[in-house]
Amino acid sequence: MSKTSDRLPFIRPTIRALAGYQPGEQPRERTFIKLNTNENPYPPSPKVLEAIRSCATDDVRLYPDPMANALRDKAAAVYGLSRDQVLAGNGSDDLLAIIIRACIDPGDRVVYPFATYSLYDTLVAIGGGEIVHVPFTPDFSLPAGIAEADGRVTFICNPNSPSGTAATLEEIADLSARLRGLVVVDEAYVDFAAGSALPLLRERRNVVILRTFSKSFSLAGLRIGLAFGAPDVIAELAKVKDSYNLTRVSIAAAVAALDDYEWMQTHVRRVCDTRERLIAALRDLRFEVPPSQANFLLARRPGENLQGLFSSLKERRILVRYFATPELSDALRITVGTDEEIDALLAALRDLL
Amino acid sequence: MSKTSDRLPFIRPTIRALAGYQPGEQPRERTFIKLNTNENPYPPSPKVLEAIRSCATDDVRLYPDPMANALRDKAAAVYGLSRDQVLAGNGSDDLLAIIIRACIDPGDRVVYPFATYSLYDTLVAIGGGEIVHVPFTPDFSLPAGIAEADGRVTFICNPNSPSGTAATLEEIADLSARLRGLVVVDEAYVDFAAGSALPLLRERRNVVILRTFSKSFSLAGLRIGLAFGAPDVIAELAKVKDSYNLTRVSIAAAVAALDDYEWMQTHVRRVCDTRERLIAALRDLRFEVPPSQANFLLARRPGENLQGLFSSLKERRILVRYFATPELSDALRITVGTDEEIDALLAALRDLL
Repeated sequence: MSKTSDRLPFIRPTIRALAGYQPGEQPRERTFIKLNTNENPYPPSPKVLEAIRSCATDDVRLYPDPMANALRDKAAAVYGLSRDQVLAGNGSDDLLAIIIRACIDPGDRVVYPFATYSLYDTLVAIGGGEIVHVPFTPDFSLPAGIAEADGRVTFICNPNSPSGTAATLEEIADLSARLRGLVVVDEAYVDFAAGSALPLLRERRNVVILRTFSKSFSLAGLRIGLAFGAPDVIAELAKVKDSYNLTRVSIAAAVAALDDYEWMQTHVRRVCDTRERLIAALRDLRFEVPPSQANFLLARRPGENLQGLFSSLKERRILVRYFATPELSDALRITVGTDEEIDALLAALRDLL
Repeated sequence: MSKTSDRLPFIRPTIRALAGYQPGEQPRERTFIKLNTNENPYPPSPKVLEAIRSCATDDVRLYPDPMANALRDKAAAVYGLSRDQVLAGNGSDDLLAIIIRACIDPGDRVVYPFATYSLYDTLVAIGGGEIVHVPFTPDFSLPAGIAEADGRVTFICNPNSPSGTAATLEEIADLSARLRGLVVVDEAYVDFAAGSALPLLRERRNVVILRTFSKSFSLAGLRIGLAFGAPDVIAELAKVKDSYNLTRVSIAAAVAALDDYEWMQTHVRRVCDTRERLIAALRDLRFEVPPSQANFLLARRPGENLQGLFSSLKERRILVRYFATPELSDALRITVGTDEEIDALLAALRDLL
């Protein structure tokens, strides 16, 4: 450590000490059944692919619209908002980073239930904020301590990763009413869920809702996210985004995806059907599985360490997600794939267990 | 201000006070001759357009390679580096923001000659750093005070925007030898210039070089930048980038652009030829024009305010860049367009002056 400090005196001590976020594996070989990063097993709308092709013109020499207004307008129409309530991001990860940059001075508290999306830890550490983990209840209900912790920013991943569980609109409404700070409802998986916190925007200025096109819209490769919030909050967030944060291709593809909203909904229904079948089969195999409202689920065997099972599945070319933390060593997070992929997973599990 | 503070108690005071970076206008109508944001007037290689089209497959449902290794490997081969000396960014603006995040704690000094790329001010303000402007000499040579200011980070935009002028390799070598802090040589425009600071990477660990595909490679719309540096510096910078900062399309397009390096060089030569003709014609019109090594130039009329001229050109559907700051009110920054575009500009100027 002191050696790095001598050689790289210009790197912040905080960053030197940081491990950095570890994204799930993206193997280059295509021989894996990939159930580890919550991608959609079904393709995006053909209209999206057409929109990508239509961007292959000399216009790529020109900068994109810095505010991606075509996308903001389309999203505003689809979600019943105005343009100034919408900000576009290079994935919702970009929007999470933007929120930390806009809100957190060194030492400011950022609160979230734990375990949750591990990128929050990385982003708060980079921003110099104080991470406050409030453990979920055993059934992954929102813990009472969240409001008392009085965060300048509170993240609620809803549905939550890796548990797949979701808080109700009433719970989030209550939380946001009790807090002066900003409540960020990270709805990356909401299209697979029963409901959204979107109605709260009408009454609460301290709520921002995040969406991504990486899951339900099958566009993880194009990095598209949206933030919904009060116009004056959106205006402050826009100040700290990169000047041109979305490519021309991603803007066009996102507009096309929203244009074919029904395509998304059809494939989301298929994923949800497969999810229910998978949950039942896993419970038959004596896994504990919290009710999932996402395109993945958490399969637990309390008291067992599942790293070996993870490795055995990987040897059979089935990738799921194992988190090497004490709280989650008894669990695998499994993305809901196609029916064929899930059948292969279940066959392997029956063989291994 | 106090009103915003009451309504938005979760936004940092620094951000509330921030005006935000103003990118050059991106008019939606295509009737303008657009000489305001230093885009390349010539198209990208046909191989790039083919690469974009080839990304219109179901694979967009999958995340991109988080490190964009295909692009790192290709860039390493082209520029004589190793993969671990290269980091890919969502435009070089992303890489500038990454450097501030990795290096600057509140109050740390960030030093650069002034006037230069105005985004630096925005990024340092967001990071809570101390901005130290050291005025250029009247002929835009590197000012002696740069090294004495002893920045934790020193930005040298080289060639510099908006002046178009460039420091020599020897000057930058000397500066980096005198500093313990990081010297960031922002070479966005270097393909239009006589030389690069790339040879310094062999000897100096405190030098990072930034490149963009937005200018010479005609790919502003796809947001691609590269950072070159020592492997341990690159590893620290990688910790604070967004997990998946480049889209699948941009990675593929960038690799294709580097594959057709000669296409870029051919069009760069055309731009440089037009630039020399434009400089001569502007000097005939009694503008002072510092020697430019970029794809733009600064046209000055000392003592005059050129905002009126900017507006008159805009009325004639010719967009150039006017900076409403005291140091630059006597100047227009003009991007080198096609010969036809430059002829139209010169005809308009002859008419207006």
